[in-house]
Amino acid sequence: MSLLTLNAGSSSLKFALFPDDGDDAPALLSGMIEGLGTRARLLVTHTNGTQRVDEPLAPAGDTDSHEARGRAPSAGARSMVNDTDEALALVLARLPEWTAGEAIRAIGHRVVHGGIRYTAPALIDDRVLADLNALTALAPLHQPFNLRAIAAAQRRFPGVPQVACFDTAFHRGHAFVHDAFALPRELHEAGVRRYGFHGLSYEFIAGQLRALDPAAHQGRVVVAHLGSGASLCALHEGRSLASSMGFSALDGLPMGTRPGQLDAGVLLWLMTERQMDAAALTDLLYRRSGLAGLSGMGGDMRTLQASTEPAAREAVDYFIARLREQIGAMAAALGGIDALVFTAGIGEHDPIIRARTIAGLGFLGLALDDEANAGHGRTHGGRISPPHATARVWVIPTSEEQVIARHLRAVLDRGDDGH
Amino acid sequence: MSLLTLNAGSSSLKFALFPDDGDDAPALLSGMIEGLGTRARLLVTHTNGTQRVDEPLAPAGDTDSHEARGRAPSAGARSMVNDTDEALALVLARLPEWTAGEAIRAIGHRVVHGGIRYTAPALIDDRVLADLNALTALAPLHQPFNLRAIAAAQRRFPGVPQVACFDTAFHRGHAFVHDAFALPRELHEAGVRRYGFHGLSYEFIAGQLRALDPAAHQGRVVVAHLGSGASLCALHEGRSLASSMGFSALDGLPMGTRPGQLDAGVLLWLMTERQMDAAALTDLLYRRSGLAGLSGMGGDMRTLQASTEPAAREAVDYFIARLREQIGAMAAALGGIDALVFTAGIGEHDPIIRARTIAGLGFLGLALDDEANAGHGRTHGGRISPPHATARVWVIPTSEEQVIARHLRAVLDRGDDGH
Repeated sequence: MSLLTLNAGSSSLKFALFPDDGDDAPALLSGMIEGLGTRARLLVTHTNGTQRVDEPLAPAGDTDSHEARGRAPSAGARSMVNDTDEALALVLARLPEWTAGEAIRAIGHRVVHGGIRYTAPALIDDRVLADLNALTALAPLHQPFNLRAIAAAQRRFPGVPQVACFDTAFHRGHAFVHDAFALPRELHEAGVRRYGFHGLSYEFIAGQLRALDPAAHQGRVVVAHLGSGASLCALHEGRSLASSMGFSALDGLPMGTRPGQLDAGVLLWLMTERQMDAAALTDLLYRRSGLAGLSGMGGDMRTLQASTEPAAREAVDYFIARLREQIGAMAAALGGIDALVFTAGIGEHDPIIRARTIAGLGFLGLALDDEANAGHGRTHGGRISPPHATARVWVIPTSEEQVIARHLRAVLDRGDDGH
Repeated sequence: MSLLTLNAGSSSLKFALFPDDGDDAPALLSGMIEGLGTRARLLVTHTNGTQRVDEPLAPAGDTDSHEARGRAPSAGARSMVNDTDEALALVLARLPEWTAGEAIRAIGHRVVHGGIRYTAPALIDDRVLADLNALTALAPLHQPFNLRAIAAAQRRFPGVPQVACFDTAFHRGHAFVHDAFALPRELHEAGVRRYGFHGLSYEFIAGQLRALDPAAHQGRVVVAHLGSGASLCALHEGRSLASSMGFSALDGLPMGTRPGQLDAGVLLWLMTERQMDAAALTDLLYRRSGLAGLSGMGGDMRTLQASTEPAAREAVDYFIARLREQIGAMAAALGGIDALVFTAGIGEHDPIIRARTIAGLGFLGLALDDEANAGHGRTHGGRISPPHATARVWVIPTSEEQVIARHLRAVLDRGDDGH
């Protein structure tokens, strides 16, 4: 039987199938529908290499979903998907062709917010679902997609156990100073806390480090999860001590369309001088800021690095400056640094960003092996620092799916799978 | 003739008199009215020690200005001052008794915000006044008091040249990455920038360092201005490279009643879940947050350190944790650190805060001489690090007034004093 993982966002749906036995066995197949709302595409990779799907899900020339939605579906638009619900329906309907008819034993969901209560994965029942719904206010732009995935999977696979794996859970052991803001206590009690996100990714990286760099795993590590969302995690003895992301997915590092660290006074000014309400501010801060706001040419790091426009260069410079500063801050939280790990899209694939970041951080003992960095760390099994460096630098590909599958197996092994 | 400096805030008015000649001569007299709105008090110190005023300005038992305002003035309340305007009137009226009748040749004002335009002190004329009024939106809780001081001094001393000295000017040379937020460009153009404040204090410290630690002055220094307002400045070759304070006086380090660094998502949550508008958020963030919010027992660091309440201890722990992290961030902006300077109320007078801060920052090369630290640095002329430390730690008392007087003399020497 197979385990299914689902990771549903606003512009993509990721999924993977794992064997239900085998100690931490890798995925049999992984896939995604990307470009929801723009130019959707289904990508599927069998781990054994026997099959690869790369299938456009929008009629040729359809680049704007708003236009597309306004038209009657054409004959060729049968498989067109415009949003997360349609993506879920398509993936769940086509699962049999990828599983060779094998049954789904359990389903694991990446859920962005587990609030204060969820410090570990949770088998989903009505009470858990009610809790997750109530937490939507803490992640209004992310949690609803996770909830839709749960609902769609429950309809398609009634009775199959489903487990919520939280991006916040890995950080729930933070000490008060790394969990609080300097606000009235009552707000802390009400849930206004530094939750931190990307916890499944950090949990995976911590596990990898145990084998790759046991001394660092037992010491002080900063992990830079740099994707379209980006954050840092300070790992102390393999556990999360602090994160650059706080209450929402807005804080910390600048991202594709989100600003990262921002003076609260800017919001007060926008409210009083520009008469912006919460909806207008949400649109500004989640969709029009970050690298896209600075560059005026979108938030894709590859596009910006390829551009010679001054605004694009400044946007990249800004990213590097904040990244260095926040690595410095996390190092201070740890009292020093034994290793720095780059992961996620930019972290795994952008040697220039890695080189520029490290260039300013020699005072922390960090140094780069240029050749290893250019080869994405492959020459040294992921390490891109020279042997003499006092603090190691690693490139480690992350896999949130692998962690979700691990949690699914643990729940099934415990026998609390609802059967 | 004398030079007068005025530094007007919401709860205090500071002033000083300087000789109008003499190269950087110290103040003849300095004074303040503190406790405006609560229990006002006039304090005056002659530098030569001949006279000291310590005079309550509220009738005994009057601890609440709101009550006091609602009552008719009693016979004994002649000298009672409740607000900045009354404090200004009292100080300007009583100047002759402190100057021995000597005329005021020029007046210098601390002005919190000079916006994008003012990179140096400005002789105040109608155009400058109009600019400063227009900048009120950038510092709505501070700039109005500075403007009232200018107006009061103009009424009392018509024709005497007045100079605005800006807290933002010292930071105006920041590179783009230290001046911008990751927001749409249009907002940067409209003035949404990382201004940084406490610039007069940092300018003074940079000047002191030139003599005390020339190598650090030519290198990389982090200055921690820790008062009821608090910020950090990264000095590179004596100039401001970056500051922990950004657009408003809210960002960066936690303060007595202000939160410091805060996730923008918290404001969105307060707007949608608590229906808070800009006025309510302003009150929360300027008056009820910071150490006061965390401790529930006010924002005074001495009170919190003396308390055994867990919430008071956590508030101090939070302050230390953020201070360490942001020193780490400033060190990263500088690419390392040659010296750290503590200044302003807490920085100059709290050896425990200094010791706890440095305790976690050994990885930066910082170390403490416990005896020198306990003696507030007096044993080593301000240095509180041991001789072997690779990065020095200093305690340097700041004087914004001295910098303002310096600027006044420079304006008078240039002859552009309006006469």
